[in-house]
Amino acid sequence: MSVDLLVKKIKEKGNPSVAGLDPKIDYVPEYIRKKAYAEYGQNLKGACAAIWEFNKGLIDALYDIVPAVKPQSAFYEMYGLCGETVLHKTIQYAKEKGLYVILDVKRNDIGSTAEAYSKAYLGKTAVDGVEEEAFGVDCVTVNPYLGTDGVMPFVNDCKTYDKAIFALVKTSNPSSGELQDLIAGSAHIYEKVAECVNKWNADTIGESGYGAVGAVVGATYPEQAAALRKIMKQSYFLVPGYGAQGGGAKDVVPCFNCDGLGAIVNSSRGIMCAYKKGGWKEEQFAEAARAEAIRMRDELTSVIK
Amino acid sequence: MSVDLLVKKIKEKGNPSVAGLDPKIDYVPEYIRKKAYAEYGQNLKGACAAIWEFNKGLIDALYDIVPAVKPQSAFYEMYGLCGETVLHKTIQYAKEKGLYVILDVKRNDIGSTAEAYSKAYLGKTAVDGVEEEAFGVDCVTVNPYLGTDGVMPFVNDCKTYDKAIFALVKTSNPSSGELQDLIAGSAHIYEKVAECVNKWNADTIGESGYGAVGAVVGATYPEQAAALRKIMKQSYFLVPGYGAQGGGAKDVVPCFNCDGLGAIVNSSRGIMCAYKKGGWKEEQFAEAARAEAIRMRDELTSVIK
Repeated sequence: MSVDLLVKKIKEKGNPSVAGLDPKIDYVPEYIRKKAYAEYGQNLKGACAAIWEFNKGLIDALYDIVPAVKPQSAFYEMYGLCGETVLHKTIQYAKEKGLYVILDVKRNDIGSTAEAYSKAYLGKTAVDGVEEEAFGVDCVTVNPYLGTDGVMPFVNDCKTYDKAIFALVKTSNPSSGELQDLIAGSAHIYEKVAECVNKWNADTIGESGYGAVGAVVGATYPEQAAALRKIMKQSYFLVPGYGAQGGGAKDVVPCFNCDGLGAIVNSSRGIMCAYKKGGWKEEQFAEAARAEAIRMRDELTSVIK
Repeated sequence: MSVDLLVKKIKEKGNPSVAGLDPKIDYVPEYIRKKAYAEYGQNLKGACAAIWEFNKGLIDALYDIVPAVKPQSAFYEMYGLCGETVLHKTIQYAKEKGLYVILDVKRNDIGSTAEAYSKAYLGKTAVDGVEEEAFGVDCVTVNPYLGTDGVMPFVNDCKTYDKAIFALVKTSNPSSGELQDLIAGSAHIYEKVAECVNKWNADTIGESGYGAVGAVVGATYPEQAAALRKIMKQSYFLVPGYGAQGGGAKDVVPCFNCDGLGAIVNSSRGIMCAYKKGGWKEEQFAEAARAEAIRMRDELTSVIK
């Protein structure tokens, strides 16, 4: 009922980062795409075959370096049913390799529907009393716009199945301020959401000192991150926006607590497309990804100290 | 680039309602479940076989009465890959029957990821330049918490592919007020979102007078609906909360404009589980659903006048 498992893996690897698996088709090396199209056609099926080979290569190269992977559901859903199949295979393969799997789905709905989403990803689906796991990840992202009764089904499954969630608080995108930065009374909306996160998190605190309900806080807004770190002391932060989106290593420092814990920084494009920079051959995409993951680990651990 | 197609179908059927397809397994008649479990096992696969037969029966009974169906993605995702397959089949079957398909997914993310979601559901997915439709629905729901750059990819695809979206403004659930009712300056957050909807909708207005960007406004909050109707004059409202959630026919009146248009009211459980009330046999689930859809149509058209 906490994020202890993630913290354990972060400590084991000495690495507070997560590799995003957002497989846009143009991230996949051309030789893999060509081979897949030749076998399955240049269509959704061919794209999915290419993405699966790419993901598998990345996981093989990263699993002893990074504690976690974060597939972004959109980049699988866009390939339809075979995209969902690749997502499912990617989740299972990452788990087999001992990786903590954060599925970025940003789901949200009224209570009874949120419960269905939670069963899909964190819990188990009951078929007239017989339970089966549908996706079975360790953690999902959720959107808090519907309030407590849209989030509690996820929190309840965190308790039952020892899982975790990250609620969107301050997102990394340019227009995140339109609603999130509005001021209600004496606080910004993102601070109001942070107070909700504290409430949802309160009775889920584990041995690590952190609870099951974390927060998404973008590296692109370091000042807000510093304020949020003070409000949500016992919530882990999932930090997007490092690298390709413009956030630097120093920008993520405010997301961490003094103990060097409290945040996990995501890099997707930076790791997946590392082979496109610095003289690598396409065939070396996995080596390049591994080198970038190590560079990122070392950069993060140096700035946190 | 508008909601004209939906308005046309509403006028043709003389019915401003949408049948929600939220197939919880206990909504499915026992005889269908037993048959499916006997053939496929009492597991996710068996559940999906039962749900597909149920959905097909419902669509066959409703397609000449209701203008639209609204599958709720959560109740398919919870059955994993075979759930996604049933969702895909349900969408295709409903389209074949001439129904307008609103997929309730409440997706949301940063711009580049929102674009992937939009391609998945409204647009087409490009595989190195070759385009293919992944899900191909008429309309999706989106969550506005990330602001304009998370919504514009959907709006752009509405323009390109003649589709529509409904953004969450004031949701029907009990805790919707926690964030949505906060007051920023002189307006509630839901009114701030309504102003965003107007901005997103502005250059998508079609012949019907309504644009591609509609709003989700719960029947459970008629006062707020009345205020929102005045702000978003050219947005269609998707209205959940009627029936099982407690909203009555009079509660949805403020969602409509004087022309009797401007809103489409959802009923899921009321229609799907109609056979559980009033002396129907299980085998009559489709007849019962049709009778309830007709009753709802007549009730809505009488109160709108």
